[in-house]
Amino acid sequence: MALIVQKYGGTSVADATRVRDVAERVLYTQQKGNQMVIVVSAPAGKTDELLALARGVAKHPNPREVDMLLATGEQISIALLAMAIADLGGKAISLTAAQVGIKTDGTHQKAKITEISLKRIKEELEKGQVVIVAGFQGIDEKHDYTTLGRGGSDTSAVALAAALNADMCEIYTDVDGVYTADPRLVPNAKKHDEISYDEMLEMASLGAKVLHLRAVELAKKYNVPLHVRSSFNENPGTVVKGGENMEQGRIVVGVAHNSKISKLTIARIADKPGVAAMIFSKLAAADINVDMIVQSAGKDGLADISFTVSKDDADRAEEVARSMVEVLSAESVERDDNQAKVSIVGTGMLTNPGVAAAMFETLAQNNINIEMISTSDISISTVIPGELVEKAVQALHSAFELDK
Amino acid sequence: MALIVQKYGGTSVADATRVRDVAERVLYTQQKGNQMVIVVSAPAGKTDELLALARGVAKHPNPREVDMLLATGEQISIALLAMAIADLGGKAISLTAAQVGIKTDGTHQKAKITEISLKRIKEELEKGQVVIVAGFQGIDEKHDYTTLGRGGSDTSAVALAAALNADMCEIYTDVDGVYTADPRLVPNAKKHDEISYDEMLEMASLGAKVLHLRAVELAKKYNVPLHVRSSFNENPGTVVKGGENMEQGRIVVGVAHNSKISKLTIARIADKPGVAAMIFSKLAAADINVDMIVQSAGKDGLADISFTVSKDDADRAEEVARSMVEVLSAESVERDDNQAKVSIVGTGMLTNPGVAAAMFETLAQNNINIEMISTSDISISTVIPGELVEKAVQALHSAFELDK
Repeated sequence: MALIVQKYGGTSVADATRVRDVAERVLYTQQKGNQMVIVVSAPAGKTDELLALARGVAKHPNPREVDMLLATGEQISIALLAMAIADLGGKAISLTAAQVGIKTDGTHQKAKITEISLKRIKEELEKGQVVIVAGFQGIDEKHDYTTLGRGGSDTSAVALAAALNADMCEIYTDVDGVYTADPRLVPNAKKHDEISYDEMLEMASLGAKVLHLRAVELAKKYNVPLHVRSSFNENPGTVVKGGENMEQGRIVVGVAHNSKISKLTIARIADKPGVAAMIFSKLAAADINVDMIVQSAGKDGLADISFTVSKDDADRAEEVARSMVEVLSAESVERDDNQAKVSIVGTGMLTNPGVAAAMFETLAQNNINIEMISTSDISISTVIPGELVEKAVQALHSAFELDK
Repeated sequence: MALIVQKYGGTSVADATRVRDVAERVLYTQQKGNQMVIVVSAPAGKTDELLALARGVAKHPNPREVDMLLATGEQISIALLAMAIADLGGKAISLTAAQVGIKTDGTHQKAKITEISLKRIKEELEKGQVVIVAGFQGIDEKHDYTTLGRGGSDTSAVALAAALNADMCEIYTDVDGVYTADPRLVPNAKKHDEISYDEMLEMASLGAKVLHLRAVELAKKYNVPLHVRSSFNENPGTVVKGGENMEQGRIVVGVAHNSKISKLTIARIADKPGVAAMIFSKLAAADINVDMIVQSAGKDGLADISFTVSKDDADRAEEVARSMVEVLSAESVERDDNQAKVSIVGTGMLTNPGVAAAMFETLAQNNINIEMISTSDISISTVIPGELVEKAVQALHSAFELDK
């Protein structure tokens, strides 16, 4: 008898029909002889609806109370799913994070799980119940509700699977699995049957939206095998697991892209020690995540510093940059919202020095100008003009034979 | 420094404007130097909305899961009110029944409170917080959510006031207090400044909707003074308290009515022992509350048994009655949905035998035929034709000089 954790996102429990579909799927898997723990998100749209209510009564809603409010979204989902399973003749019980004992630190809206109590879950499993747990939420040491941040239900599921030493953690979503590139851009993108944690981490952090980054980190840490698959069909999805038994000979496993970036350049700064530190600590203080950074030192002792940020942060980042022009004796701040990041990902890259060259050559052959470059152990990223992103992804996908 | 418990119903937290109004009222009372514990219902309409969701996924929603679902309604209200108070510069914290420790038995949908833990509430009060507690809900010994039944937030408030030994329990509603009769029927009905628990109990059980019956029973048991008042204005309302210091010389304090009743008659039953028991145990087994019962034994040894039920239960009651016609050797079942109950209430009644006669005389003078009569220690009720209810209430209100 295997213990399986399944996680269903908001679109999977968006309405009564979908909830009943999930109930049937859960019972089907249980009836094959498995113990089942189900993690559910709030119904699609519910979290935004609750946040709108909060903004209606307060300009700056108190974070503790926002978590109290948001926790109701998942509580609705777990109750409805438990009812639907019972109505189909199954045995199911819903549990909030408080009832399970999913302990977190006290950082409201982005809490980290510190401990999970297994007593109640195990008792209910032994009674043959499907145990349905509210995702996204936890409780701190005062027994106050906390939430794990957007997409946190993935993290809840992986943490439960790790604590329960589950045989598999299935993440149900609205796509069939992890692809070599976004199928909307590359029609012949191929679904991976298997991918390593590290590769998945890079894909997730570089813009592939299938899995929540923190959930993959946690799965890697506790070696929890993940199965990413669609709740709309029966197709097998992508298994994400340790790197040992990966498919042979693959160097590049995917092309990721992110069109939601802006590039800012502070031009002609006096090139002396401490300048970069000053800029980026100011940006950090404003809670702005900076992604790629390029510094070019000119011959005249003046440097340009360019960096990319999420488009959502671009206004605030520009404001911070402009506020520093004087102190840096810089010439100007330039901003370009028409930028995209295109990356290739693969664990074999580090020991294959030709990969970077092949990537740049492919882009050059397609007349795509590279504006910035950065590399990690298992990825190479380039910033290119936004309108060329589709062409770039397709060319790289084909050059690295990902469609084969 | 007084400790005040305030309860706000669903209409008082129905939208952002109303929530902010309540927040201001709470802070105003706190700033006069009081400690405040606030009990809130779900926003108006929310409970029905959640029940509709439940019926969407299951024909017979599991009662435990219904309570899990319904508990989210009050959780939304407490979070929003706490945010609104904080936004106005006050200090407030919301607590679910689980966080407070409002223990109940395990009867889902109509649980009874068994114990209230005061630790967390007292800690927060000592920090100067307005403590906002979710009404209507509790937790059983397994830490599962229970609910107290419709109108249960009144009961939550009174129970908290009793446990905290509060100086006053204010019940905010959409009317100004307890009236001598329904002001919509009797324009010159007068608001009571004070009324006794027993009188309020009779008024509530006879159809006056101002307070939930169980809440009044609990207030009487623990001698919690209640102040029933409007959340829409600043008028003083009605204080409900012990009977010792009541206004002098009042015999009748109010005229109550209920138009939502149906009368059923099982006609010409063989009049022998056990017949009534058989009928009413069958009705009880079907979970139908029977209100008034009249049995008339004819000279031929055949009896008619008439009883009233809520209009909502009339279909099921008629079904039960018809199923017994054969075994009772009865002649027929008759049903009349056009009936109303009109009652007078007052603690002085028992020692004033003329009151009943005066009531019947008043109805007779107004050509109102009495179809059934029942009496209690402090009330006399009559069933009359439904279309005459307004006339009857007005005539009795005037005859007992309630407008003086």
